[in-house]
Order: sequence, then structure tokens, then C-alpha cells
Amino acid sequence: MLFEIIRSEGLSHNSYLIGSQGKAAVIDPRRDCEIYTEIAYRADMAITHIFETHRNEDYCIGSLELAAQSGAEIYHGSQLPFVYGRPLHDGDCFKLGNLELTILETPGHTEESVSILLTDHEVSPEPYMIFCGDTLFAGDIARTDFFGRERYAEMAGKIYDSISRKIIPLGDGVIVCPAHGAGSVCGGNIADHSLTTIGYERKTNHNLTIGREEFIKKRSGESPYTPPYFRRMEMCNLNGPAILSQIPRPPHLSIGQINEFIYQGAQLLDIRSPISFASGHIPDSLSIWRDGVPAFAGWYLGYDSPIVIIDDFNLDPEDIVRWLIRLGYDNIAGFLAGGFAAWFKGAQKTVSFGTCTVQQLYERLQTESLFILDVRDIKNFSSVGHINGAHQIYVGELPQHIHNLPKNRWIVVICDTGFKGSLAASFLQKNGFSRITNILGGMTAWINAGFPVEKLP
Amino acid sequence: MLFEIIRSEGLSHNSYLIGSQGKAAVIDPRRDCEIYTEIAYRADMAITHIFETHRNEDYCIGSLELAAQSGAEIYHGSQLPFVYGRPLHDGDCFKLGNLELTILETPGHTEESVSILLTDHEVSPEPYMIFCGDTLFAGDIARTDFFGRERYAEMAGKIYDSISRKIIPLGDGVIVCPAHGAGSVCGGNIADHSLTTIGYERKTNHNLTIGREEFIKKRSGESPYTPPYFRRMEMCNLNGPAILSQIPRPPHLSIGQINEFIYQGAQLLDIRSPISFASGHIPDSLSIWRDGVPAFAGWYLGYDSPIVIIDDFNLDPEDIVRWLIRLGYDNIAGFLAGGFAAWFKGAQKTVSFGTCTVQQLYERLQTESLFILDVRDIKNFSSVGHINGAHQIYVGELPQHIHNLPKNRWIVVICDTGFKGSLAASFLQKNGFSRITNILGGMTAWINAGFPVEKLP
Amino acid sequence: MLFEIIRSEGLSHNSYLIGSQGKAAVIDPRRDCEIYTEIAYRADMAITHIFETHRNEDYCIGSLELAAQSGAEIYHGSQLPFVYGRPLHDGDCFKLGNLELTILETPGHTEESVSILLTDHEVSPEPYMIFCGDTLFAGDIARTDFFGRERYAEMAGKIYDSISRKIIPLGDGVIVCPAHGAGSVCGGNIADHSLTTIGYERKTNHNLTIGREEFIKKRSGESPYTPPYFRRMEMCNLNGPAILSQIPRPPHLSIGQINEFIYQGAQLLDIRSPISFASGHIPDSLSIWRDGVPAFAGWYLGYDSPIVIIDDFNLDPEDIVRWLIRLGYDNIAGFLAGGFAAWFKGAQKTVSFGTCTVQQLYERLQTESLFILDVRDIKNFSSVGHINGAHQIYVGELPQHIHNLPKNRWIVVICDTGFKGSLAASFLQKNGFSRITNILGGMTAWINAGFPVEKLP
Amino acid sequence: MLFEIIRSEGLSHNSYLIGSQGKAAVIDPRRDCEIYTEIAYRADMAITHIFETHRNEDYCIGSLELAAQSGAEIYHGSQLPFVYGRPLHDGDCFKLGNLELTILETPGHTEESVSILLTDHEVSPEPYMIFCGDTLFAGDIARTDFFGRERYAEMAGKIYDSISRKIIPLGDGVIVCPAHGAGSVCGGNIADHSLTTIGYERKTNHNLTIGREEFIKKRSGESPYTPPYFRRMEMCNLNGPAILSQIPRPPHLSIGQINEFIYQGAQLLDIRSPISFASGHIPDSLSIWRDGVPAFAGWYLGYDSPIVIIDDFNLDPEDIVRWLIRLGYDNIAGFLAGGFAAWFKGAQKTVSFGTCTVQQLYERLQTESLFILDVRDIKNFSSVGHINGAHQIYVGELPQHIHNLPKNRWIVVICDTGFKGSLAASFLQKNGFSRITNILGGMTAWINAGFPVEKLP
Repeated sequence: MLFEIIRSEGLSHNSYLIGSQGKAAVIDPRRDCEIYTEIAYRADMAITHIFETHRNEDYCIGSLELAAQSGAEIYHGSQLPFVYGRPLHDGDCFKLGNLELTILETPGHTEESVSILLTDHEVSPEPYMIFCGDTLFAGDIARTDFFGRERYAEMAGKIYDSISRKIIPLGDGVIVCPAHGAGSVCGGNIADHSLTTIGYERKTNHNLTIGREEFIKKRSGESPYTPPYFRRMEMCNLNGPAILSQIPRPPHLSIGQINEFIYQGAQLLDIRSPISFASGHIPDSLSIWRDGVPAFAGWYLGYDSPIVIIDDFNLDPEDIVRWLIRLGYDNIAGFLAGGFAAWFKGAQKTVSFGTCTVQQLYERLQTESLFILDVRDIKNFSSVGHINGAHQIYVGELPQHIHNLPKNRWIVVICDTGFKGSLAASFLQKNGFSRITNILGGMTAWINAGFPVEKLP
Repeated sequence: MLFEIIRSEGLSHNSYLIGSQGKAAVIDPRRDCEIYTEIAYRADMAITHIFETHRNEDYCIGSLELAAQSGAEIYHGSQLPFVYGRPLHDGDCFKLGNLELTILETPGHTEESVSILLTDHEVSPEPYMIFCGDTLFAGDIARTDFFGRERYAEMAGKIYDSISRKIIPLGDGVIVCPAHGAGSVCGGNIADHSLTTIGYERKTNHNLTIGREEFIKKRSGESPYTPPYFRRMEMCNLNGPAILSQIPRPPHLSIGQINEFIYQGAQLLDIRSPISFASGHIPDSLSIWRDGVPAFAGWYLGYDSPIVIIDDFNLDPEDIVRWLIRLGYDNIAGFLAGGFAAWFKGAQKTVSFGTCTVQQLYERLQTESLFILDVRDIKNFSSVGHINGAHQIYVGELPQHIHNLPKNRWIVVICDTGFKGSLAASFLQKNGFSRITNILGGMTAWINAGFPVEKLP
Repeated sequence: MLFEIIRSEGLSHNSYLIGSQGKAAVIDPRRDCEIYTEIAYRADMAITHIFETHRNEDYCIGSLELAAQSGAEIYHGSQLPFVYGRPLHDGDCFKLGNLELTILETPGHTEESVSILLTDHEVSPEPYMIFCGDTLFAGDIARTDFFGRERYAEMAGKIYDSISRKIIPLGDGVIVCPAHGAGSVCGGNIADHSLTTIGYERKTNHNLTIGREEFIKKRSGESPYTPPYFRRMEMCNLNGPAILSQIPRPPHLSIGQINEFIYQGAQLLDIRSPISFASGHIPDSLSIWRDGVPAFAGWYLGYDSPIVIIDDFNLDPEDIVRWLIRLGYDNIAGFLAGGFAAWFKGAQKTVSFGTCTVQQLYERLQTESLFILDVRDIKNFSSVGHINGAHQIYVGELPQHIHNLPKNRWIVVICDTGFKGSLAASFLQKNGFSRITNILGGMTAWINAGFPVEKLP
Repeated sequence: MLFEIIRSEGLSHNSYLIGSQGKAAVIDPRRDCEIYTEIAYRADMAITHIFETHRNEDYCIGSLELAAQSGAEIYHGSQLPFVYGRPLHDGDCFKLGNLELTILETPGHTEESVSILLTDHEVSPEPYMIFCGDTLFAGDIARTDFFGRERYAEMAGKIYDSISRKIIPLGDGVIVCPAHGAGSVCGGNIADHSLTTIGYERKTNHNLTIGREEFIKKRSGESPYTPPYFRRMEMCNLNGPAILSQIPRPPHLSIGQINEFIYQGAQLLDIRSPISFASGHIPDSLSIWRDGVPAFAGWYLGYDSPIVIIDDFNLDPEDIVRWLIRLGYDNIAGFLAGGFAAWFKGAQKTVSFGTCTVQQLYERLQTESLFILDVRDIKNFSSVGHINGAHQIYVGELPQHIHNLPKNRWIVVICDTGFKGSLAASFLQKNGFSRITNILGGMTAWINAGFPVEKLP
């Protein structure tokens, strides 16, 4: 049988293409879906089925796009009123050549979540693999907080039951193919393993080893971060995103065009390094370094006003475009032609803010009264440790808490390495804060330099 | 952790690249090894270790090539006097970032075979994966016949013990990464699964379920086919193949150059379809269709006289070159410039032999006395079934048995689909047989057409 | 300035991308136009202008496609009522950075033909290049026969005047960029030069050196071949072809699907080599070898019933698709999955016809009365020479003359190398002729073998 | 005939591949020469001849590399004792299919310079193209200063005579294919035209229109810049550079490894943007922005100590490697793994210098006494204009003049856009200057902002 994992970096999203005897199915396709048709084409297979394990909330599903290109049928859980596709019910069975795909309803992450059990009858009637979407991850269980705090316990119980009653009994030797890998916002602690097995999880997955009651209790105490674009993705994936046909190729924009876009309220996305950004950028730009786009664009970018992208040398622009359209950002206006140097050449207005190294910070702290804003998540803040006196606000939640920050003090932003700090600093500056410093190297450098840290219990 | 399967089609060879925290290891690299350096490069990792699970006999190992490009150290079992690399012993342990690799000596297929157990301490001290080379395959156990019939039982026992005492006890949930997939000549019955688990094999692998005594008995009755190039590969992999630096790009040869090569005894490898070949080809050509090169070149091509390749349109020549150099064929002279049409345009001598469809064959059989030569393997001949009266000689072993064939009768060659039949027919013609017909569509067509077949018990 | 020639093989079509200071123009874009956007993108330029030198009749213009992707404006001659784009008039002037593009109306090939004179004011006010579409070619003048025999002299005079009065006076040193290269059906005798100069043409272009009267007289005696798809292209290019957005990726079709398509009247396009085709093919297939598709599909394929493509190994299918969509064939159903061998394996009906080498033909001619059908063009037939007694009908015009061929005789088809002969033979067979032989190697082989030829004055 | 221009950006180097009837020649190949073998391969041609128009001084010739891959013969002028290849003499003639290549000795740029006249006998005995190396450029004549000031007039006369007596008389319509395009250091004023003609040059090339005496006089007053690596290239191209076999893939280096290299005296090449560099970099780094590497590496990098490359995100590293090996830099140690952020994370020592915008500079100039160092070439300084009081030293010649700069003053470096200024500033800092500011946007921004400039006559 054909078996391919297609990983989308940044989102830590895994989709799967499986096939047998000329027929193929894709599970949870991403929106830039030519990779599936290419693999199927080379394998002389037609994609006939597309399965969504659930209505994804962290990216724009590619089902309609792929269906338009392949003619395949789309299937998803029956517990949501999807505008497109066909409903799946527990026990539904699909044949794909020698393969048999059996649907298990596994609610918990969402009500309509399903897992797909694969048996390869060419080899044996024993179950071989399970595609369990956002239910069981390597090293973790998917988050269950989407229905509000009052249903925390209920949903945690549901997912625990889905896993312990439907998945675990399949046997230790079944290969587990989850929809997300390490770094996904859909799980707090996913291991960096592409694949796992029921046996390995049974032994090593902390959430499984603590037992049902303990797990529910633990969950009730958690509040995972939820980027605002999740709402958008949910609506988008319920109704089906727009068909693209191909990856857009946004134009290179002259300074004149960009000024016009700015005048019309464009969002300026600066993907250069933090040190470049701090030293000079277009006023009101947001600093999201290149590789941070998949994870952080959804916290800060809107879907209406056009997005103008600023880079140093406009290298590999297609990556940026792919990442944005995976998040449903079809409002990309273009790239600054000639890169940021063109802005200087045009003698256009720039602004800047300070940066400093951890050594410099350490020295300043001896004498100055600085407001240290640590924008890492609370887990890092607590367990990796932080600078004495630092205030923690997660970078993604800064917009909600910005009114609590003191405008009259010098704010030093720190994160783990300096990238998220640049985003936070750019957001502060855009909102009228003028005395800001971003710490290059972040807490990693601070610790590497041997400076003192505090931890929370 | 980084985990990538690199499959070499045709050989059904799997190699693996694993990595953690900037360091990577490759297990059983192939000779055209730029794919490993590319993956490692993109992942910002340095390849530091190369492991050979055993001295491979079916392809040319890429360890020296990859070491030359990466500076990595090479390791292999201690039970053979390898000219290069360092010896491994049971229990040896390697750190690769968070990963721990533990060597298990697992003799049976060969004396020096090892398996590599991977534990990811980032996640758990439980074993996660095992790279078991040619020991345990998905659905099969590697062949154990290389040391002669007198040691059949001994080696079968050894591999059985290696698996049952060292691998099975690791637990059902361990992922099994074998060195070969379906279609490899290193196992008779490998399932078409890239990956498997100990649990899945324990339940479904027939060779494991029958028990030690039964397995040894079964093995004693088997005689797997062994292509002649295996000897060459063994010597090559003991001493280390020549370094290539890059995939060669053999020249396009004019008719004049080709005639000169023929005069000097060149081997003519015609990779066109069977129907093209039969209808006209250069005298003394061997017919091995494009996709058959990895599996059949080693049965028929020598390593000394130059190889001239004949195609229709010279499409994707790099594939052919890669497949040949993976088998150690560094004696490629070039391609016929302009494709086979150039040979006709040059008014050069061609020869041909007959083809017919199964319908035509069926009709001829009513009236003619034909010698039906079935060149499939004995398993297909017996269980899929054959035409009444057919004589079975496996295509690879035709050279040893050709003297038994009747020169005075019309020989009808049949295989499963017509490709291997073309190879057999070309070999017969090259050896003086003149009345030959290859059956297009082979036994597949015969059965699809509803004609009668016989089976052996 | 940016200057790139984009050649479309097979059609021998040249398009051009020029640019300066961030702005680019494309002249006569082809339909698969991502190559222009890619070049412009890498050069940090926006495509702002698209020029059509005339309403092309031999391929589907890519102007609308490129405009949809780039937002550029389309321009063409004013003497035709184009449904899209803007009219050009003699003397119109466009600025593209430092470049100045001046329109010269140069009727003759068509009424609305224009040439575009480029001056690079960065360097000099002297003219630098001229894009003269289908007016002046390297070594030839474009054909002028599209308006019927009664206007032959008029149009020949017009093109001669366009060239001699508007182009030649620009001076010997001006670089000439024509819309077609050697092999195009838009000129009978185009030299194999990508580029030329007015000076080189003035000295070496026979049509220019003979003078106006002589040229008109010569033209009056010519009847260039006109494939039937020209009418389609003319209508298509007047109204604008459908927008594709991307190169289609036609599916691999099972035998069942193909039989259904055949039942519905599909056109079977077999792109294998002549020797493969002759020895076995699906009944009613047309034989157009892979590289012959751009030049010969337009003679034989219709635009309504679906096209099924048959190949040996389905290599590089994208090339075939590109070639077909450049000719406006949006009716591609797909490829035979598994290649032609699948047809045999399925025990499906095949037919065949004979082939022979020139040596075999020579021998047969000593004793048999064969009807030799030479399907080369009349120029080759006359000047390269033919076999005594051969009847000449150009392969493209066979449909009009097939009723003149004797059904009761054995027809031997010959062309220059055997490819076009295969097309002719397949067409004869499809139309009920049963005794057909195609000569492999064609007249090239015949001459190479030293057999006698006759020439016409 | 096949005709392809292969341009190497940055060096503005043009090489050419021409071919006919299965044979191809390459003129002035670059060192990363797989592009030639690929083009020839696709065109079904064998590269049989390699011509060097002269011993190049600005890049490492790829003749030996290409000969090793293709088996072609190498030819160059007879007036230098090349260690490899065969000598060419005036009037030597080579056949390449239908093409005839005639050697014209055209000394002036160097003594052994030749031009290659191409006639295509398929079309006409008239000359069609000339490959004139570093003799006649589009819009310029090659520099003639390599033999010292005392031979300025002699060499200028020689090149003038070569062009006026041997090239011009070939006729206006001959296409001219020079070895360099705009931006090359081998000509001061080359037009941005890939190709030109004798006629166009005769009319528009200032150096030709002024007449012999005037030209010699003009040349006697010129002193073109000569990067120090020219000497190295000359020796290299006389003796033949080392064979690479493939583009090297330098490793990603950890901070530990880099510190070791630094300890051993490595050269640090920082290819980030000027604004990144100024705000923080490894002590003693040289700032050469990515696209500046081909033109400026040769001024500042040595051939002995290893080169460590520092980038933001290590995008497209192959480009950098190609550019360096074209200049003969085989001493690349590797890239900083993880990009420059890794340096901060490691809490390693960094240094910085100031930058400012032109607006800030303008304000500072009202009150401060700054030493303005303008590192553009003298032509730009004089004719585009400069800031009142600025001192001009060309960036490439800064090492020779650094002792004249005042260590006690604040030095403001300015160039045209800020990139070369960053290189100059980095060199100053490396040499102990501590008060340095680089002007972002350079004189382009200054002029765009409307600030006053002075010009020299």
C-alpha cells in the first residue's frame, strides 16, 4: 500500500495519503494541495476519497480545493452541519483497493471528531494503522477546551473515553497517525514523533498513564492559548474555503503602491530578523520573522485589509504565501519590491526601537528600573525560569492586556530567543509605546550567560 | 526527532535518516546519496554516523560515498573483515542528540547482521523504533540461504532466535523499520508496508506464528533465487565501492560510436517496451524494460564490457543511470543518440521476433505444437496457475537451463505480463534460437481472457 | 534591459519578455504562461503590457491567461475586431522604463499585423531591436496565403512593402526577433536561427534578394499546407481562449473508463514510437509520436470528443498536456493508466499493421506490386528525392485525398524517418484500409542504404 | 543551430553554448558548469570544443571542469604559455556540424585575446555572429590597463585596431556576443544589452565613434579599479583551477566550531543586510550583502584562511557557494547553523556600529563636524554628485587608503544605497575605527530626499 505523511511545517500539521490498487485517499488535506495530486499521479492512483477527522480550527482545510482538482468525495463527522461533503457515522466502512477504512467516532476535541482505522486485507484482517486526527497525539491528548469552561470536564471525559474505549483496545501494535506533531497549538505537549503506536503511547503518554479522574482534573486546571483566527477557521471549514486553483504569486510593489496601501489601512508584515526590524522599519509594521508566520500570523493579522510583506531580499517568497493561505489569508497585497533597502533608498520614513544583548541588560538592571515584559507562555516562564521581577503576558494575548502596561516606564521585552519579543515590541510600538527594548537571544541567552533565573512551583 | 524513510524503487530498498539536535545518522545508505545530505542540510543537521545493518548483497552500499560528502563515521557488524568502517558489538551505544542507538547483534541473514534500537530520551526511556535491516521484514523473515544448503537449518535457527529473543521481547508497540519492502529479492513474501510494529508482526507474520521448528523445516525446503550480481555486491560492499562524487551523465552515442562499442563487445541494454523490442532491435540486445532494470539488470549484465542503452525517446535517462550505479554498474557507455528511430534512419541491421496476444496464442494452441516456456517464478507458476503443458524456468535462471531447450521447436515465452518474457526471448535469440514468440499481456491476460489454467498443489 | 526569448518547441514559436526599471512586456505569449510571470518575478518586474503582433493562427494565444495573472493590458492590431484588448495604430508609442516601443503596422501575413520597434534610450536613440511577428523571419518571409488565391499577389505585395519600406530602412544593425523559428508552418523555409539582423537578412534571405516582382510571382505559385485547426485558432484568438489558471493534470484512466470513453466516441492518441504502434494498438487509434504532437495534432484531432492518450510508460505527461493546450485542446480525458502494457494485460482487443525496413522494402519491390504512398511534403519529395513510382500526398492532407487510394492494393507508406508514415498508416487503417506497411527509417534510411532515388525538377 | 547565452549574475559574465548536428561548443565556461552539460544533453549534443577567448582575470575558468565532464578539447590564444589546452592562431577554422568557427586574433585587452567568428553554412557563407570575449562590449571597449601605465597607449591602440580592422569590417549585420554585460569590472561603461550588432555599436558605442587617437588619449587618462583577486585568477587560469566534480555543500557550523575557526584566523563573511549587520555582528566580520558577493568578495577575501558565512536564515545557500567558487574560493568552511540568531542565543560577543537615515544625517550635519567618507567610484562621485565636503575613496581601494583616515573623528560612510557603505564600515571597524556610521539608503536616498549635492566637472 502507498503511505505518505505530508507535513506542513510551522503548523506542525500532518496529513496522510494512502492508496492501494489505483485508488487513494487523503486525510485532512491542506489547502495548497498539489502535493497530493502529484504523489498520486506518480503512483498511478486516482484520489477518490478525502476524509476530515474533524472541523479543523487551526488551518484552512484543503478538501474542496483537492476535490476540485481530483473529483474525490469529501467525508466528515456527522455531528456538525457542514455545508459541503458527506456525513460519517461510527462503523462506516470504505474500501480502497485492498484497504478497509472503518470510521470510529471519537468525540472530545470536538463533537464530530472521528478516527479512521485502516486494515490491509492483502496482509491480514488485523488492524494496521489508525488516523486519529486531533484525538490521540504522540505524547499528548488533544486539547478539549473549545466549548467553554463549563464543559471542560465533560469534554475531557469524552476524549478520554474515546481513546481508552475505542483506540487503546485495538492493540499495542497498531500504528498511530495523528493530525499534529510537536509544536502544534492543538496540544500542549506533543512529542516530536511523526508516528507512534498504541503500545508506545500506553506506556509513555503521561495523560494516559494518570487515569481518567486525574486527567479530567488536570484538564480542568488548564487554559490553553487560543489565537483569534481559530474562529475564522472554524467558520471557514464549516462552509468551505474559497477555491484557489493555484498558489497566488503576489506582485512586487513599488514604494508608491505601498504608500497607497498604507493610506488605505494595509497591514504591514515585516518578516526580517528581529535585529533588522528593531533598527529600522516602516511605521506601524508588525514584526513576525519568516518562520514564525505559520504560528503567529493568526494572532495578529486580520482578514480584511490587505497584507503587505516586507523582507530583506525577497528570497523564497512562495513559502510565506503558502503559510498565509493555509491560514486563509487570501488578502495578500504583495511584497515590497527590492526589499527593505528600497524603503531607505526612497528616503521614506522609518522608525526603530532599541535592542540589547543579555549582557547589556544585566548591566542596565543594576542601575535602572526597567519593566521586564516576558512574552513566553506561562509554562516556560514558570519552569524554564525568568528574570526576577519580570511580568508574564503571552505574546499572543498581549492585545488583551496591553492597557495594563505602564506607558511611563521603559519596557524591556524578552522571550525565549528574541523573535517573539520582536513581535511583542512591534505591537507595543504600533500602539503608542515609545520606550521599548527587545532582548536579542532572549532567556536562552540569559541562561547561557549564566545570569540568575527564578522559577515558579 | 527527524525521521525520514528513503525508498529506492525497484530494489525495494529502504534507508533511513534520523536526527536530533543538529546531528543525524543514516542507516544503509544507497550509493546516489545526495538525498541524505539534502535532507540533513534543510534540517540544519550534520550527518555524523552511518550504520550498515549488514553487508548488503543486492545493492552497492553508499557508505563511503556519503562519508566522503559528510565526514561521517561508518559502522558495521564485527563478524566480517570489512576493509573500511568500524566494528559494532552487541550492546554498543551511540548518542545522537536526545536519541540513543543501541546495537543488537541479530545474525541469521548474515553472520554480521545487526539491528539498531532507538530510544528517544526526550520522550521516554522506553524503546521507540528498531532498524532491523534484513532480519525482520513486514510480513516475512529475511532469507537465510546464503551459506549453502548444509547451513540452511543453522541459519534459519539463528535468525529465528535473533528475532524471538532480541526483537520480539522489546514489546508490541515498537515500530519496526526494515531494510526492504515488498518485491525485494531478500525476502520471498514481504508485505507492502513501509513500516510495521512488533505487535503487528507477532500477530500477522506467518513465519513468526508457525514456531521455531516449523520455520526451520519450511526454510530447509526453500531455494530462493540468487542473481549472479550478488557475489559482486558482496565483494564490493566488503571492500567499499568506488567513489562517484556525482551521478554520471553518460553521453549520447552516434551510430558510428555504437557500432564501435559493439565491435568491442559492448552489452546492449534495450529498455523499450516488449512490443517495440520484439518488432525490431539491434542484434544481440537484451530486453529489460525501463522499470525492470533495478530487478533484472543484475541477472544479465556484466561489469566489464561497456553497456549501451537503447530507448525510444531517451526520456528521464537519469533514472536508468541511478538504477545501474546502485547495482555497481560503473561501465555505462552511453545512450543511442536520437533513440531507436536513429538506428532505422541509419539503415542499420535489425532483427525481430514474434509476439502474439493471448487470443492468438489460444488459437494457435488448437493446431500447433508449441513449446511453452513459462519464465515466472515457481510460486506464481504453481499457485496463480499456468497453461497446460508449460515448462517453467525462472527468467533469471534461464542461462543455466538454456541447453535444455529444444532448438527445433517454436518456443512461446510467457510470463505474468509480457515484460520478463521479452527479456527471456531476447536472451534466447541472442543464443541462437530463432523461432520465438513472446506473449503480450502474459498469464494476466490469459486469465483475464478466461482461458483455462492449471495449478500445482 | 531584460531580454528573454521563450521558445515553444514543436510549434517553433518564439515569444519575448523585455523589461526595464521594474516594468516588463511580453510579446505573443503562449497559453501556459507561468514562465513569463516567473522570469518577471525573479527580475523584480511587473508585467504591464502584452503585445500580440497579429492574430495567431497556429496556436492559442496566452494573452488573456497572462493578463489574468499579471493585470497587464493587452494590445493588438486595429484591423480586426478583437473581442478583448486594445487597438494599436502605426506610430503608437509605449514607454517601459528606459525602453521605447514604437508600433509599425506591417500588414501582409494578416491585415492587422504589427511590428514593434524597440529603442533603449538608456543607451542611444538609435533603434536596437524589432519584434516583427510573422512578417520577417530568419531566412524567410511569412506566408501570405490566408486570404485565398485571388488575393495572393496583393498580400505578397503588402508584406514585401511592409518589410522593404518599414523594416529594412531601420538599418543593418537592428536585431530582428521573429515570432517563429525553423520548422514553423507559418513559413516554408525558416532558418534555424533564434535571432537575426536586418543586415544578415538583407544579404542572405532569398525572398528579399529576388526583388518585389519576383517575390510576388514566386508566392503566386506556392500553396503552403494549412492544418484544419488554424480556423479554430483564428476564432479562438479573436474571441480569447478560456482561462486555465493552471496546467491541467489529466487523470490516469482504467481500461473500463477508457472503453466507456471509446464507446462515447473518444479520440485515441497513441504517442508511442512507430514500431510499437504498428505491432499493436487499440483499434482506431491515431499514431502521433510524442514529439510530433505540437506539429500534427492540429491536423487530426477534433475539439469536441475527449482525447485519450496512450503511451508506453506515461513518462513526462506534462509535456504532452502543454503541447495540446497550446493548441487549444481542452478536451483531454486522460492517460491509459499503466501504459499500453495494461491494455494487453486486460486482454483487450488490439490491431496491428506491418512495418518493414528499407532493405526489406527494396527486396519486396523486386517482386511485388506495391502502392508506395509518400507522405512527405512536395518539396522533400521533389528535391530530396523519392522512390520510383511513389505517389505523394502530404500526411496532413491525407483526409482530403484518401478516396483516391486503392483499397485493393498493398499500400506502403513512407515518409522521411517513419514517424509521419505511422500517422498516415494509422489514419488509413482507421478508415478501413487493411493492407498497410509503414517503412521504418523512411527515405532517410533508403538513401543511407544507397538505394536509388528520383528527383523532380 | 543551438544558441544559448548563459549569464552569471553578479560577475555579469556571459558564456555561450552553440551547436549543430549533435556537436556543441562552449565559449568561456564558468566553473559550475553542469548547466552546459544539461543543455547539451537535452539537445542530444556532445560538447566537443571549449574555447577561451582569453585568460580571464575576473573569474575562475570552467574549461578543465567541463572537459573532465564532457571529454571536450580546450582551446585558447597562443600568446600565453597555458599549462593546459591547445593554442589558437589567426585563421584557425573549426567545423561544428554546419557551423564554421574562424579564429581572429584580437589582442588589446590581453595579448592572447581571440574572437571567434561563426558562419552557418546551412544558411549562407556570410558571417552570422562573433564571440568577441573581452574585446568589444555592448557600448564599451574592454579595459586595456593590465600591462601597466607605460603600455596604456600601446594596448589601447591594439584593441582599437583589433576592433576596427578585424571586427567592424565584418559588416553591420553581424551579431556581437561579448563575454561581459553591464556591471562587469572588465569594462567601465558596458550597456545593459545581452547582445548587440556591429552596426549598432558602430553608431552608438562612444569609444568607437571618437576615433583612434581620441580613444587612446582617453584611455591614457583612465585608471580602472583592479580587485586584488585578479592576480589570483590570472595564475589560476594559466595553470587551470582544481577540479570540483560538484558544487560543494559546506556544513552548518555550531557556535563551538565557529569559535574554533575564528581562533584559527577564519574570515567571517556576513551576508545579511546593512541594517542587520550594523546593529550586531560577530567581531571582525566583513559585511558583504548577499548579492554583493560576486562583485566584492574578490576585493576583500583571501584564499587561505577558511571562510565562515553568516546569514539571517540560511536561505538559498547554494547561490553564495556558487558565487564564491566562481571566484576560486575553495576555502569555504561553512555556515553559522541556525543563522545569526544562534549567536545571540549562545550569548556570544557581538559588536555594532551606527546607522542613520539621510534625514538624520542632514540634521547632524547642521551641528556636528563629521568626516564623510564616500565609497562610491569616482565617476558616481563626480557626476551623480556628492555631499559637500565628502572625501571619496572607492570601497575596493579602502585597504590602501585607510591610513589616511582620521581615527579621532566620527566617520560617516556613504555609498549609493547603503550596501557598499556597510562593507566599508565593517572594514574600518575591523581595523580599529570605533566611531562609524553607515548611511542607509546612501546618496540615492539623499537625492530622493531633495538634499543638496555637489558635482565635479
